Amino acid sequence: MREVAVVGVGVNKWGELWEKSLRDIFVEAALKAMDDADVSKIDALYVGCMAPGLFVGQEHLASLLADYLGQCPIPAARVESACASGGLAFRTAWMDVALGLHDIVLAGGVEKMLDVDGGGATYALATAADQEWEGYNGATFPGLYAMIANAYQKKYRISYDKFRDQLAHVAVKNHDNGLLNPNAQYHMKLTLDAVKNATMVADPLRLFDCSPITDGAASVILCPVEIAKKKFRKHKIIEVIGTGAATDTIALHDREDFTYLKATEIAAQQAYKMANVFPKDIDLAEVHDCFTIAEICVTEALGFFKPGKGGEAAASGVTALDGKMPINTSGGLKSKGHPVGATGIAQIVELTEQLRGEAGKRQLKDPRVGLAQNMGGSGGSTIVHILKSL
Amino acid sequence: MREVAVVGVGVNKWGELWEKSLRDIFVEAALKAMDDADVSKIDALYVGCMAPGLFVGQEHLASLLADYLGQCPIPAARVESACASGGLAFRTAWMDVALGLHDIVLAGGVEKMLDVDGGGATYALATAADQEWEGYNGATFPGLYAMIANAYQKKYRISYDKFRDQLAHVAVKNHDNGLLNPNAQYHMKLTLDAVKNATMVADPLRLFDCSPITDGAASVILCPVEIAKKKFRKHKIIEVIGTGAATDTIALHDREDFTYLKATEIAAQQAYKMANVFPKDIDLAEVHDCFTIAEICVTEALGFFKPGKGGEAAASGVTALDGKMPINTSGGLKSKGHPVGATGIAQIVELTEQLRGEAGKRQLKDPRVGLAQNMGGSGGSTIVHILKSL
Repeated sequence: MREVAVVGVGVNKWGELWEKSLRDIFVEAALKAMDDADVSKIDALYVGCMAPGLFVGQEHLASLLADYLGQCPIPAARVESACASGGLAFRTAWMDVALGLHDIVLAGGVEKMLDVDGGGATYALATAADQEWEGYNGATFPGLYAMIANAYQKKYRISYDKFRDQLAHVAVKNHDNGLLNPNAQYHMKLTLDAVKNATMVADPLRLFDCSPITDGAASVILCPVEIAKKKFRKHKIIEVIGTGAATDTIALHDREDFTYLKATEIAAQQAYKMANVFPKDIDLAEVHDCFTIAEICVTEALGFFKPGKGGEAAASGVTALDGKMPINTSGGLKSKGHPVGATGIAQIVELTEQLRGEAGKRQLKDPRVGLAQNMGGSGGSTIVHILKSL
Repeated sequence: MREVAVVGVGVNKWGELWEKSLRDIFVEAALKAMDDADVSKIDALYVGCMAPGLFVGQEHLASLLADYLGQCPIPAARVESACASGGLAFRTAWMDVALGLHDIVLAGGVEKMLDVDGGGATYALATAADQEWEGYNGATFPGLYAMIANAYQKKYRISYDKFRDQLAHVAVKNHDNGLLNPNAQYHMKLTLDAVKNATMVADPLRLFDCSPITDGAASVILCPVEIAKKKFRKHKIIEVIGTGAATDTIALHDREDFTYLKATEIAAQQAYKMANVFPKDIDLAEVHDCFTIAEICVTEALGFFKPGKGGEAAASGVTALDGKMPINTSGGLKSKGHPVGATGIAQIVELTEQLRGEAGKRQLKDPRVGLAQNMGGSGGSTIVHILKSL
């Protein structure tokens, strides 16, 4: 098994990109990553995208994107695991390079979500849940995550007001970080009061507890560490030292404990074992904060905080940019935006920039090891990666 | 790189399965493959499916299918490359086992196409073409393949009647083979006259030149050859000796020659090189006959026949079950059916059964090496595999 490095990263400015198409934004981010790595030719391409058929009436992205990137006849593949599609693309590209199939491989993610109306986007996203048992009974993701939040509050016997405060801290912190990320969708400072008094979506989750609908793309270039050391000397080399993937029941009602993200814990344990590190060794993490409650449950499942303590950690500032365990320095899905297929790749972009020391105004002090956790649906699939600067 | 074997295969009876859902038919075929391999537990799952969001309102099959197969928390992934999604799932599973990530891996394919009406299915399938340049201008796949057929007839200066006869021979031959396949959608003998006088779809293609809309699933179990030799002795061991993948422009109008399937030739050359075999060494091939003209162009791109001679080969009986180069012994997409995500896996099932000597009434005499060619769109992506009996 060859050791694999990330040698190029690129992301476009995320937001409501009415004037651009899916292929435009994918190519934009891909060319940025290729430029960052200083390559004009790639050997293979993997792209994560959740629902291009529903969002823009286009499947077969493998052919489309290899074509529009000017890279035919290279092998290309689209992979999908709902909102974890980006993480899955990165893992599949890693497999390719580790196996020795190809040397210079692009892993990208893209989603063009604004070309359908709000109802269309909610429908498309709901296809990540169990349609027959959840979707057709009216459950959408804000409702499912609200059930997780309610179960969490009850299980750990936190008062509603205190819990609501903890949730708000996650949103405020991630928007603070997003202010420092030029590619984030929202550059908008939030206050605790603004989050707590926002429009109710599904009790206790209000508008600013939810990640937005976003058009965006991200790309990274992978190659063997051996080649990176010889040919890619523009940046510090970032090695992929751990990968993990796991599944859980797709329907929330089939789980013993709504607050326990089993797939996240199992995928993380695989990645920790492979990387030979422990949660305490992680200097920063990008995690899947599709809703504020998700960040709390995820940071517990990753082993950063004890069960029931994730909310306190957010409220006390531990997960802030200047805290002991910075979470979502990029702004997270909350403020950076959540073009679902691109999210997992953008997490790798953020880790790479931080570990290189090239994260601009949000740069942490000398981080060595970073973790990315990307999750599909209400936790039915999870992909975890651990990166380290050499 | 570990050597990889196929040790279990399963396919359900394909057709219009109104009473079953996508998850039902996937699980049915997967359990058959697991039963064939005599395993109750798998280590990872890869599923090829083209457009479950458009066909049945369900994405996130990785989680859904691992769940309904009772295999959580194993890693699972869905891959998509339009009608080549099954071949891509097999290739990705092969990568996983070859790399040494997992030992017992299921590669499946599924598509539930009958739950939308005819117009819905045509729309969903058209998302495999370039929507902005082909789909939105009214081009659907029968039209695109008709353009390939017309270009072929003109390029090789074949009279319309003779060419129409060659196309009909492909359909008649594949239906003859399908009569011997108990899982085929159609058990219906065709005559040349019936094909040539069928309802016109897109000149020169008529109804029986087109593969049908189908509900169906297929699964295979892969493991390292070393483990297969020790633990899987129920059947002859079938080794994966070659794999290849390539892309071409997604839009037909961007190609220099409509009749030349470049991605197929390049993917095949990769697979031949890796397997260290030549076209003459192939004893049987399952190829992507979504339309009769496709089988003709594909058999040329694979190197079985010279350019312009694929039609003659079909008409002369060379590609029949008792011919020198049997093509689509399973009945092909034409008569077996074409549930798009399942097709590439079903090709591997057919090769495995033939190479094991377990293909029943359609068994060839001692085949040793088989090739599967699975194609997306009008040839924008192609996956080729070569299998050999040990």
